[in-house]
Amino acid sequence: MSRLYEKTVPDPPEDYARIDHESLKNFVADVFISLEVPREFALIAADVLVMADLMGVDSHGVQRLTRYTGGIRLGSVNTKAKMRVVNQSTSTALIDGDAGLGQATAHKAMELAIEKAEESGVSIVAVRNSHHFGMAGYYALQAVRKNMMGIVMTNSEALVAYTHALGRNLGTNPIAVSSPTMTPPPILFDAAMAVVPIGKVEVYSKECKKIPLGWAMLPDGKLADDPGEVLAKKGAVLPLGGLGEEMGGHKGAGLSLIVDLLCGVLTGANWGRKVKHTLNTEPANVGHFMVAIDVERFRPLDQFLSNIEKFKEYLKSLPKISEDSQIWVPGEKAWLTMETRKRIGIPIHKNILKELEDEGRKAKIEFKVKKLNGP
Amino acid sequence: MSRLYEKTVPDPPEDYARIDHESLKNFVADVFISLEVPREFALIAADVLVMADLMGVDSHGVQRLTRYTGGIRLGSVNTKAKMRVVNQSTSTALIDGDAGLGQATAHKAMELAIEKAEESGVSIVAVRNSHHFGMAGYYALQAVRKNMMGIVMTNSEALVAYTHALGRNLGTNPIAVSSPTMTPPPILFDAAMAVVPIGKVEVYSKECKKIPLGWAMLPDGKLADDPGEVLAKKGAVLPLGGLGEEMGGHKGAGLSLIVDLLCGVLTGANWGRKVKHTLNTEPANVGHFMVAIDVERFRPLDQFLSNIEKFKEYLKSLPKISEDSQIWVPGEKAWLTMETRKRIGIPIHKNILKELEDEGRKAKIEFKVKKLNGP
Repeated sequence: MSRLYEKTVPDPPEDYARIDHESLKNFVADVFISLEVPREFALIAADVLVMADLMGVDSHGVQRLTRYTGGIRLGSVNTKAKMRVVNQSTSTALIDGDAGLGQATAHKAMELAIEKAEESGVSIVAVRNSHHFGMAGYYALQAVRKNMMGIVMTNSEALVAYTHALGRNLGTNPIAVSSPTMTPPPILFDAAMAVVPIGKVEVYSKECKKIPLGWAMLPDGKLADDPGEVLAKKGAVLPLGGLGEEMGGHKGAGLSLIVDLLCGVLTGANWGRKVKHTLNTEPANVGHFMVAIDVERFRPLDQFLSNIEKFKEYLKSLPKISEDSQIWVPGEKAWLTMETRKRIGIPIHKNILKELEDEGRKAKIEFKVKKLNGP
Repeated sequence: MSRLYEKTVPDPPEDYARIDHESLKNFVADVFISLEVPREFALIAADVLVMADLMGVDSHGVQRLTRYTGGIRLGSVNTKAKMRVVNQSTSTALIDGDAGLGQATAHKAMELAIEKAEESGVSIVAVRNSHHFGMAGYYALQAVRKNMMGIVMTNSEALVAYTHALGRNLGTNPIAVSSPTMTPPPILFDAAMAVVPIGKVEVYSKECKKIPLGWAMLPDGKLADDPGEVLAKKGAVLPLGGLGEEMGGHKGAGLSLIVDLLCGVLTGANWGRKVKHTLNTEPANVGHFMVAIDVERFRPLDQFLSNIEKFKEYLKSLPKISEDSQIWVPGEKAWLTMETRKRIGIPIHKNILKELEDEGRKAKIEFKVKKLNGP
């Protein structure tokens, strides 16, 4: 049995319980079902949330459940949504999500993209009128299961400052890219085009730690090291590459803008500051952009896979910057974390557990998640 | 008449001559023709080089001519190349460039991508066995002329250090994305996935200036501020986001790796340290990746274009970080520089002029570039 590895380790451990992922997924699905989300969609949304926890993307896991249930109760998320293909061709489609759960819409969109790529080699399915869909990588991995490469983008509410501008004016706008490999883990790059997610600033604030200069700035343009001040004053996270142009901040801001072009402008969804949070009464109108690439249209799959393995070996064999550092292939940390957490359970903070219990109470369903003993 | 603007201003001006771009392009084409490059390809290669100079991407302009002519003389660039479509489907193709000039091959590849996207909505044309193709944005702009969005990537010789690894092991691997707009300039994002191009380190070295800590590191992993030392010791440029993971360096390195996957592994081209410089006797086997997206398959073009204008206005109207700062849309600086340099000429350093004159002498063609008076 391989050794245990977790991308993020619960700290302090006594504040966390280890929860069996299957029982957690069932509970989350039941909560959605109790809110009249169709069973099929409830299962997908639950799977996306719990997959994020399994993969160590804790910020996008079940701690976000209340965001989605809150959106449903508020009416901003439409549980009766009827997705509709607005436009399509051999290798493209535009879907209107009818303000339904982003997870369900995005999952369907990638299914359609895969179908179209099977026919024509490559496809793009773009989505408008959707909601926050959780971890982008989830949908990119759908393509991998069909031996395709997947590219997934979404825009999101504005939290990032565009280069030379003040305030929150662009989304963190993640890009995920996946590739099949001969042996797991698949390649999975999944990153917001900001230096850090706002969630990381929140964590530092809770832990009373200073943030490094270059993560965020205050509304007046000053770099901030006090995470509490950033949050209180609605400071902006900086784009990948940081402030200004010296360290390439315009590149990160430009990438974020491109994601907004593809997800927002190309689809007719919102963009920039118009993209709303799930818990806002104005329509979120989030846009997504999904690409599926059938590897075999380019090279025989076995040759491709054998080269991917060589590429991974190449990276792993590079001289390391220090003895205690480790070279990672994108997606590897997440995969190892998933394998570990499937065995020993997902660490859920006691406050989050309480939130989940409350959700169960509101939904009038039993809080039947299974606690494990952990490592 | 609009005011003059240049992204990079010649400094000191007396070291530069202003050269008429048409005469420069004709001269460069003649040099290629004298080396038995077919006329059609010579014109494209010359156009790519001079376009880079026009757009202020001086590092990729005619100062690189000797790299390509050198490659031809060395035999690494094949002037008799017969490009061939290895594989194709409705919306995909893989081209083998037969080690011909990267510019000619990439141009043809994007033409094919556009043709396929006209038919099926979106297309990918990938290329192997090519060479360094100059400015990626050039090919992305081909798509814009057909009211399409273009995405262009290429891998390149290793100059960047992968996160937690020592040495030059990944290319700078640029990504260019373009979009049509109602009025010029078109959107053109074009950026290497490194903090800076190695050319910038070279410029700082020539100017005896220190480089900011975070641009490059020495072979032992120490951050460098002496550009001369970086070059002499073959230090590595850092990925976008910098050293380690604190500022998102793993995101920049991951993006660079994805470009290598799409350009190198998917096509059967080289990747990582195997990608060679044009002036190397081993096959460069550079790979490219081109996407063309027909906007009208998603939304009526006029709606799209009108939204793009609103998006540009939105960015331009954001509060600025300081009074003397300016907010730029990707591609805008390059476009204004092009308009300016078409009027007042391209500034060419006297040493580069001498190099060009030498090329003319070797090629036995007259050095008939036209000097202008400048601003």
